[in-house]
Parts: sequence; structure tokens; C-alpha cells
Amino acid sequence: MRALAAGEKVTRAGVAAEVGLTRATVSTLVDELLAAGLLEERGAQRPGTVGRPGTALGLSATGPAGVGAEIGVDHLAACVVDLRGTVRCRTEAPAANRDRPAPAVLAELAELTARVTKEAQEAGLRPVGTTVAVPGLVGRDRGTVLRAPNLGWEDVPVAAALGANTVVENEANLGALAELWLGGHDRLADFVHVSAEIGIGAALVVEGRLFRGARGFAGELGHVPVRPDGPLCSCGAHGCLETYAGEEALLRSAGVATARGPAALRKAAREGDPAALRALEEAGAALGIALSGAVNLLDPQAVVVGGPLADLAPWLLPGVRRELAARVTDRQWRPEDLVTSRLGRDGVLRGAAYSSVRTVLDDPASWINGSAVTPGGLEG
Amino acid sequence: MRALAAGEKVTRAGVAAEVGLTRATVSTLVDELLAAGLLEERGAQRPGTVGRPGTALGLSATGPAGVGAEIGVDHLAACVVDLRGTVRCRTEAPAANRDRPAPAVLAELAELTARVTKEAQEAGLRPVGTTVAVPGLVGRDRGTVLRAPNLGWEDVPVAAALGANTVVENEANLGALAELWLGGHDRLADFVHVSAEIGIGAALVVEGRLFRGARGFAGELGHVPVRPDGPLCSCGAHGCLETYAGEEALLRSAGVATARGPAALRKAAREGDPAALRALEEAGAALGIALSGAVNLLDPQAVVVGGPLADLAPWLLPGVRRELAARVTDRQWRPEDLVTSRLGRDGVLRGAAYSSVRTVLDDPASWINGSAVTPGGLEG
Repeated sequence: MRALAAGEKVTRAGVAAEVGLTRATVSTLVDELLAAGLLEERGAQRPGTVGRPGTALGLSATGPAGVGAEIGVDHLAACVVDLRGTVRCRTEAPAANRDRPAPAVLAELAELTARVTKEAQEAGLRPVGTTVAVPGLVGRDRGTVLRAPNLGWEDVPVAAALGANTVVENEANLGALAELWLGGHDRLADFVHVSAEIGIGAALVVEGRLFRGARGFAGELGHVPVRPDGPLCSCGAHGCLETYAGEEALLRSAGVATARGPAALRKAAREGDPAALRALEEAGAALGIALSGAVNLLDPQAVVVGGPLADLAPWLLPGVRRELAARVTDRQWRPEDLVTSRLGRDGVLRGAAYSSVRTVLDDPASWINGSAVTPGGLEG
Repeated sequence: MRALAAGEKVTRAGVAAEVGLTRATVSTLVDELLAAGLLEERGAQRPGTVGRPGTALGLSATGPAGVGAEIGVDHLAACVVDLRGTVRCRTEAPAANRDRPAPAVLAELAELTARVTKEAQEAGLRPVGTTVAVPGLVGRDRGTVLRAPNLGWEDVPVAAALGANTVVENEANLGALAELWLGGHDRLADFVHVSAEIGIGAALVVEGRLFRGARGFAGELGHVPVRPDGPLCSCGAHGCLETYAGEEALLRSAGVATARGPAALRKAAREGDPAALRALEEAGAALGIALSGAVNLLDPQAVVVGGPLADLAPWLLPGVRRELAARVTDRQWRPEDLVTSRLGRDGVLRGAAYSSVRTVLDDPASWINGSAVTPGGLEG
């Protein structure tokens, strides 16, 4: 299944060579997977290759699917992806979730997930589970949001409100996993993924797995000190990255009213507004200083800027790149190791949905035998 | 072997319960290990426990042993440890290795390792390999020092000069592994280990393994920016941690001549010299700022201060602790999560020696069958 998911060696013979089993064994396995609806045949392989042409195989476009849901500060969204990671249904609703009672938020989200689930079922897909992305810290049970300051939530049992086979995960982590799984990078397995909505979060992927830290708090790039005597941060410290490059700080320094949001800032930058350009340049430099520390400590292959930040990349990245070049001198750090995500704002939601269905790739036998598949292939 | 190395369940029955094999199987294995000289019996277990008293078992104090060697800027050292990690022979020589021709350094080191190896053999030990600690970057072959700026070395084939079964490893990494293996901490598997001789290095241990980064450069704490507009660093950037807390900067700011070294600084601090105390306080604060970033990013269980830095702990640590408390606010960071190593300066050398013999713990069968044991159990 993994060989096929990677889109390589897509005939029975190719898979056999890839995984080191005999052609006969692979044929038996493939027949089982075809019968279970996990694979589909796509006709004869293109001519020109040596030997008898094989039948091209691919992951099924029907069969198991994953539901993703996202709770943002100002929106809710849900989608379904198939085994290939392709989005098959999607819905979104603007919402003012800050300090809104959690039950109301969750009831509305449950409606959205029910809607996309039904739509997916009508298209012949079989959703196996739901992963909810939240801008906060998730408990070890993978069901409770311990703390989401920007929503005003503490100890909210999110999974329980959304039915069976639901897990909850931090949005920065899902953004990073989406980049790993669906970002279209070749062999990118060790990277720092930076994203931001209101706060600035990062997630670390190490050897193709999410790095969570000893207590699950890893990736707090927003509170890395940039200037130790800088402005007071909401966390109580001074000069954290968020006081320079967090959304609120950025909008204020650009002279854009907070209520108008990042879209207004992007517009101002595109129109060449000097205050906006200066604010973005300075935020980029602060981000570059904090990332220099991260790169010196972690030695990742790349830094990926994703989420809403990616929309501001043209104006943010020059400062980031300059600081990295000046401060990471002791190794091969190349300008092209700073990458903008191609997934954009949808990365988190797609990562959530795909993580719900990845367990089937990891363990097709459970699916075939009809045993319960628990969503959340979150370890990459 | 691991159950016995941990010093737990030290009878055959205890080991059986621990590893989930039958008493009979464990007895057979134990007899083989006894015959091979890897274990020894230590008489009846202390009374008072339930059931028939078993015979206490322990790792052999004779049998396989590991050789460690250390190339410092101003000294060379070698030692041998047994399977238990106990130092059995040790020798050290002051040396002025900065810019001294590498062949001369290596010839002298080979003499020291030959001396401790002979002494160990005479004590009935059988050294299985040598690990050399160097203050520099080591190639993927684990034999070549790619770059050691403080020695003035580039591309020096260290292992080849020291005979068969030799590997080379960065000193900061070995210091961290020593802390993991021999530091006497209970269940400490995720930590940042800070050490310094001339530069400031850190090594990250994650889930009980060294974290090397994508290209082997992880842990460059010395070049994490503390004040982005601070003093020019030797690396070309401004305000790196090393410009505040590196040995040279620290001695200068304390008004101690570089040639007199850290011992003179320690003496001045002990005598209450105001310049020395202020310099150490400021270096501690800078270290605390850099470590705050590391803790926010990595969420380790602990930060361990080891190596020569540990000798300055009484004066450095208050500043470190204060900055961590002020800047790591978003999680449970407790003052006692900042730990001073109990291994002191010898950590690196002991880590080197123990890593040479750990492969026998990991794979006793190869030892018993007489197949070549390659030193370097460096993955923890």
C-alpha cells in the first residue's frame, strides 16, 4: 500500500521488486486489496518499458476516506479526502468563535462534518474517522482540548461531541504532517514547519515523524526570544517572536485595524503601502532571527512557511532569508532551504482529513478484516 | 543483559519476570552469559523477599571493556571502563593541541590508549574497541574529523591512526550520552545537554537517542542569537550566545587573562571578585535566554549543564534559572528541571569508553560467537 501510495512501481512486478516479495505473493496480496476496494486497476502500463507490460495499479478513488474538521478563530471547515489524499468534498463557514460557548461551536462543526460525510458516502466513499484541528493544546487522550487561549477554551471534550472515531490534534502539527504527506516535496523528512493564524506556531518533523517533545509542547516558536528586552508578550516574557510577527503585532505596526485582518494587510502590501511593507519586513527579520536559533539547534533539511503566513510570503521572506543567511554560517544552509508551502491555507484541513484515513494505508489488514480502525495516523 | 545493566531484577526469576521469558529459558541464557564471562554470580539474594532465594547476578567486572580517548584543546586523556561503566584505568596528559600537527597529537594519543589497554588486559579485561572524543564535526564514516576549528583541523583521519575498531565522535554528543547512560538520572530520556570548553555546544537526547539533525549539525547552541545586534561572533553573525558565554568572552568580561583559564575565573568567583561575579551572572543570563528558546522549541524534560561549565554552576545557574522562569511560561517548567551533571569533566571520556563496550550489551550473541564487535553504541 505504501509503495502504491508513493506512486512508484505501480505494477505487480514493480511492487514485488520494491518490497522484496515474490511476484506470486504480491499478486495474491494485490487481489485481496482489489477485492477489498483499496486498490483499483488502471489498464496496461505505458509501453516502452522492458518485458511483458503489467497492469497499472493505484489507490482506490472510492473505498475508505478520512474526514477532517477545523476550528479556527474566525471560521469552521470540514472536508473528506480519499486514500490518495484528494479532497472530495469540502465545506466552510465563517464564524466568530473567540469566547463563543464551546457547545455551540461544536454543534455547528458536527453539522458540517455530517454534511461532508453524507456527501462522501453518496459518492461511494466510506469515511473511517474524523480528525479535528484546533488552535490549542490537546491532551494525551487525543480527545480533549486542554487550552486554546485564542478561543478562550479550557478542558473542552471535543472528540466526545463529534461521535465515534474522532481524534483531536493541534493545527500546527496537522499543517506540518500535511506538508510531509501531501506537500509534494521529494524526500523531505526533517523540517521545521511555521504557521500562524493569531499566534505563531511551529511543528517539527523529524525522520518523517512529528516531534512532540517530552510533554507535548514542542514547537513554541512564537515564544522564542528575539530581543530579550523587547515588548511585553501576552505570555509574560519580553521580546518573544509573537510581539514582532504575531498577527496582532503585525497589523498594529502596519497601521491596519485588527478587525480588517490579514487580507487588508496583504492588500496594503500589494499596493506598496510603506507602513505595511516596513511592518512585514521587520516581522520577517524577527521570524528569521528566531528561525536561525531553531536551525542552529535542530539542523533541519528545510524550513517550510505554511498556513496563512504563506500568503504574506512575498513580503515576509526576504527578511527571513537575510537573517538566516547571516546567522546560520557554520553549515550548508542554502537560500532554497527556506520553502513556501504549496498547500496554503488548506494544509491544516487536508492534513486532518488525510491523517484520518492513513491508518488504512498503515494497516490494510484491519480494514479488510472489518476490525475497528482508529483514526489518527499522526506519527507520520 | 539490559535488565541486569539497569541493576533491576537481579535473579534469574526476576529477569524472567522482567523480560517475559520462562524461568528455564532465562536460566539457559544466563548460563551461556556466565560461561562467556559477561555475567557473574554474586551469592544468594538478600533475605526477606518472598519465595526461594535466588542467586544475585551482575554484569561481569572482568570480560569485555571499552576504551575511551579524548582530544582536548589543552589535554589528552584515555580510560577503560568495564561493562558496568566503572572506570578501571585512566591516564591524562596536558598538551597544547591548538594548531599542533595532527600526526603528533594522534601519536601521543595512541600511546595513551595503548597504555590503558595494556593495563586493562593485565587486570583480566578484554577491550573491544575505542571511541575518540573530539571537539569538532565528525564525518559520516565515524572515522574522520571534518572540522575542529579550535584544534585547527580539517579532514583528519583520526580513526585510521588509532588502529582497528576505533570510531570518532563529537565530544558534546558523548557528554550527553554519558549523562543518559551513567548520569544517575531516573528515566531521563529527553534532555538538552549543554557543555563548553572553548566553544559552547549542546547535544539533544530524544527518546533516549542522540538527535543529530539532518546533516549532523544539531546542537549548535553557541550560535543561537541572544541579542541580534550584539557583539560580532567568530562565525560572522552578531550576538550569538558564544559572544556572551563562550570561554573567551567570559574571561575577558571578568578581567581574567585568557591564558589563566577557567580555573582562575573560578578562583576569582569563589573569592567574591565583583568583576568575575558580574561576568558569570551575565553569561548565565545569556545562556538562560538561549536555553529558553531551546526549551520553547523542544520541550525537553530537563536541561543538564555538564562538562567544564558544571564547575561554574554556582555562579552561572542563578541567571540561567531566572531567564528560564521568566521566558518559559506556557508549560510546566520547574526550577529543578535545570540540572547540573554529576559526572563533571570526566563525562565525555567516560561516555566515549562506555559507548565502545555498549555494543556487547546490545548484542551479546556476537560477542559470544566471537564475531567482530564494532564499537560505537552511539544511538543510545
